[in-house]
Amino acid sequence: MKETSSWMAKSGPQGDIVLGTRVRLARNIRSIPFPATAERDQLREVLRLGEEMVPLLKKLGEFSFLKMAEVESLEREVLVEKHLISPRHTENPQNKGVILGKHDEISIMINEEDHIRIQVLEPGLQLEQAWQVANAVDDCFEKNLDYAFDPELGFLTACPTNVGTALRASVMFHLPALKRVNQVNKVLGTVSKFGLTVRGLYGEGSDVWGNIYQLSNQVTMGHSEEETIEYLNGFTEQILHSERQAREYLMEENRKLLTEDQLYRSYGVLTHARSMSSQEAMELLSDLKLGVDLGIIQDIDSDVLKQLIVQIRAAHLQKMMGQPLPAEERDRLRASLVRETLSK
Amino acid sequence: MKETSSWMAKSGPQGDIVLGTRVRLARNIRSIPFPATAERDQLREVLRLGEEMVPLLKKLGEFSFLKMAEVESLEREVLVEKHLISPRHTENPQNKGVILGKHDEISIMINEEDHIRIQVLEPGLQLEQAWQVANAVDDCFEKNLDYAFDPELGFLTACPTNVGTALRASVMFHLPALKRVNQVNKVLGTVSKFGLTVRGLYGEGSDVWGNIYQLSNQVTMGHSEEETIEYLNGFTEQILHSERQAREYLMEENRKLLTEDQLYRSYGVLTHARSMSSQEAMELLSDLKLGVDLGIIQDIDSDVLKQLIVQIRAAHLQKMMGQPLPAEERDRLRASLVRETLSK
Repeated sequence: MKETSSWMAKSGPQGDIVLGTRVRLARNIRSIPFPATAERDQLREVLRLGEEMVPLLKKLGEFSFLKMAEVESLEREVLVEKHLISPRHTENPQNKGVILGKHDEISIMINEEDHIRIQVLEPGLQLEQAWQVANAVDDCFEKNLDYAFDPELGFLTACPTNVGTALRASVMFHLPALKRVNQVNKVLGTVSKFGLTVRGLYGEGSDVWGNIYQLSNQVTMGHSEEETIEYLNGFTEQILHSERQAREYLMEENRKLLTEDQLYRSYGVLTHARSMSSQEAMELLSDLKLGVDLGIIQDIDSDVLKQLIVQIRAAHLQKMMGQPLPAEERDRLRASLVRETLSK
Repeated sequence: MKETSSWMAKSGPQGDIVLGTRVRLARNIRSIPFPATAERDQLREVLRLGEEMVPLLKKLGEFSFLKMAEVESLEREVLVEKHLISPRHTENPQNKGVILGKHDEISIMINEEDHIRIQVLEPGLQLEQAWQVANAVDDCFEKNLDYAFDPELGFLTACPTNVGTALRASVMFHLPALKRVNQVNKVLGTVSKFGLTVRGLYGEGSDVWGNIYQLSNQVTMGHSEEETIEYLNGFTEQILHSERQAREYLMEENRKLLTEDQLYRSYGVLTHARSMSSQEAMELLSDLKLGVDLGIIQDIDSDVLKQLIVQIRAAHLQKMMGQPLPAEERDRLRASLVRETLSK
């Protein structure tokens, strides 16, 4: 498994504002009940089918197959922090699995809420690309599996909100300037009216830390996959425009000193603190990334900051030390990791 | 005039807690009314007498004589910030003067509230030494001036609270640990019962910034100069003991990380901020000095911090730039001075 997934290690298109793009397809096998109600034998059969799919993916790159029951609990948490599996996929690991692409660009959960959840992660804004990769994976599977599909409804899924395309496309934004000028709600507050939804870095129910927002489609019926991607792309353009305007405002002559001062202070705390919570680290790293992206702070690599956002998480830190650590130790280690990384 | 007075540039005895010691003697000439009620001619005569005293001080070192009316207004403010003259000595400068020792260790105000105010400033805790120097200056003057002295009351002064010895001895403490453990009031709150008084860095009515407290005697009658000095010395020992105890507490195993974290954060802000008020700079420098004195932060010279406390003041900054500056410019310059000084 990679130390850092490629989507978080590298910058992509619009990388000053868009951290990453995610596309997820949910699929189920017609003859087998959804995981929540399936018998143990049926779940085992789905897991076996999943493992059989791995060779078929060869033309898309190298893949590995993990049975969740054989993955250590700390390692499972690391997979969650890397966005490769969902938190619920770490619980009751029996008969759950995951197929991982070499650079973590593709992850396919077996027996999560649905039998198969194909997920593609790309750095920066790459909705089209991510959708095409997910579609290619889906094509491989489709030839060998009889999907639960209804000509009227589309793909059938465990949760009715996914029925149809069963596609969820997400764009992960870093919107520190909109936050500073108090415009986040104005820009993101009404998206639900347009069939979209906004969440924090770690999905549903997760708090917004470090000004990172995930925008994704809520509607999976009545529109094709391409329409959904195009629609989300359009919205993304608007958000990019608003964030860029806010950044220009922060750099106006009479505000520049204040902006520089605030961002440099965060830089100072990041490089000197001896103990730091995840949340504080996220907020400070958000400031530092803004400082780098605005050209105020020049000796830091923006990609390093993206990596740190994941590396400072609890499971990553504990994996680094090879053992579980109490919160105080994690806070100390986190501060030390941030200092060392930024001093390089 | 020196860039920084020796008492603020150097460390003295107990220099981790005591920034400096000050002894002041008030004297008046018998045949002339106190400055507030004297005629212009009489004030001019006192100023002339003061100037005549300068050669007599030769055995105590080199001295210069300044007529306040000939000192530029910004320069007068610099003298206040260096504690060499009082704020009231900058107002209506006509017929006011000051005799300054080569290293600003001695300053003698002419026609302030009293005709003559002899002040001695020493780095660290040096009450005895400061008193002896002030006494030596006084001896020089006494031979040539007829002091207003009453056998019953002692030296007569413009303000009745000074009558007697007319001695005010002050110790300037840095008490950041007592402040952190919330014990400053317990330790200093009752001093008035013991004939002492506590003020901020810039004397009467000045706020306490940067955890700097000046302790001085309030009583000038009924005790000899030596008794007053000894009494203040005794109190100082107690305060030193309390502050050291508080510092030990901050470094106890279970508090050390928190202390280190807090002090390093201040260090980080000091070395990164782009704009900083005087008050904030004082508070952060106080933290940094504590960090250095506790041995937590090792690459900074404690004396540099003492110097900065004075150099960051408004008049010093403006003198550095050779012109008056608006507050925003001063804040920017202050942050820049602090960064440059600390990066050396």
